[in-house]
Amino acid sequence: MILSHARLTFPAAHHDTGRQMLQGLAAHTRTEPGCLLYLVSENLEVPGQFFITEQWESMTDMQTHLALPGVGQAVAAVQGMGVNDLSITAWEAGAATQIM
Amino acid sequence: MILSHARLTFPAAHHDTGRQMLQGLAAHTRTEPGCLLYLVSENLEVPGQFFITEQWESMTDMQTHLALPGVGQAVAAVQGMGVNDLSITAWEAGAATQIM
Repeated sequence: MILSHARLTFPAAHHDTGRQMLQGLAAHTRTEPGCLLYLVSENLEVPGQFFITEQWESMTDMQTHLALPGVGQAVAAVQGMGVNDLSITAWEAGAATQIM
Repeated sequence: MILSHARLTFPAAHHDTGRQMLQGLAAHTRTEPGCLLYLVSENLEVPGQFFITEQWESMTDMQTHLALPGVGQAVAAVQGMGVNDLSITAWEAGAATQIM
C-alpha cells in the first residue's frame, strides 16, 4: 500500500477556487482503480494551504492516476493561479499499528 | 520513520473550540523529541472533521508522545465535547518517492 502527502498553497485571491477545485478532484479521483483514500483538507494554521492525503493499493495505481490528462491539467491550472510550492511525497507503507 | 494519520469529528457547537485546541496541540507537540511533522487540517468536505498528519523519527518517540499526560487530557476533553470517532493509525514508512 502507498501513502502519499501533497501540499500546496494558493494566493489569497484564489482560496475559494482552490477549495472547490480540490473537492472536485477528490470526487473524481476516488472513482479511480486502486484509490483507497483521497482526502482534501486545509491547514488550520495557514488558510489557503491545502493537504491531499492519499492511500493507493500500489505505486502503479498512483502513477496511473498521476499520468491522467486531468491531473496534468489541474497541476497547470494551480500553477497558473500562482501556486509555486506543490510537493508530493509517497511512501511504501510498512507495518501498521491501529493506535485508536 | 513513522507516518500517522488521525481523524476526529467535532459536533457543530464545538467546531471553533476544536480548531483552537488542535492548533495549541500542534504548537506543543512540535517541540517534542522525534516529532518531524505535526500538521492539523480540516476536511474541505466535512466542516468540523479534522486530520492530524504526523511524522515521527520512531515508534518509540510517538508512543512517548501518546503517553504524555497532556495527550490523555486532550483525548478526554474531545470525548467530553462529543467526539466519538477518533481514530489514529501509524505505519512504518518504507521507500519514499518524491513525486514533485
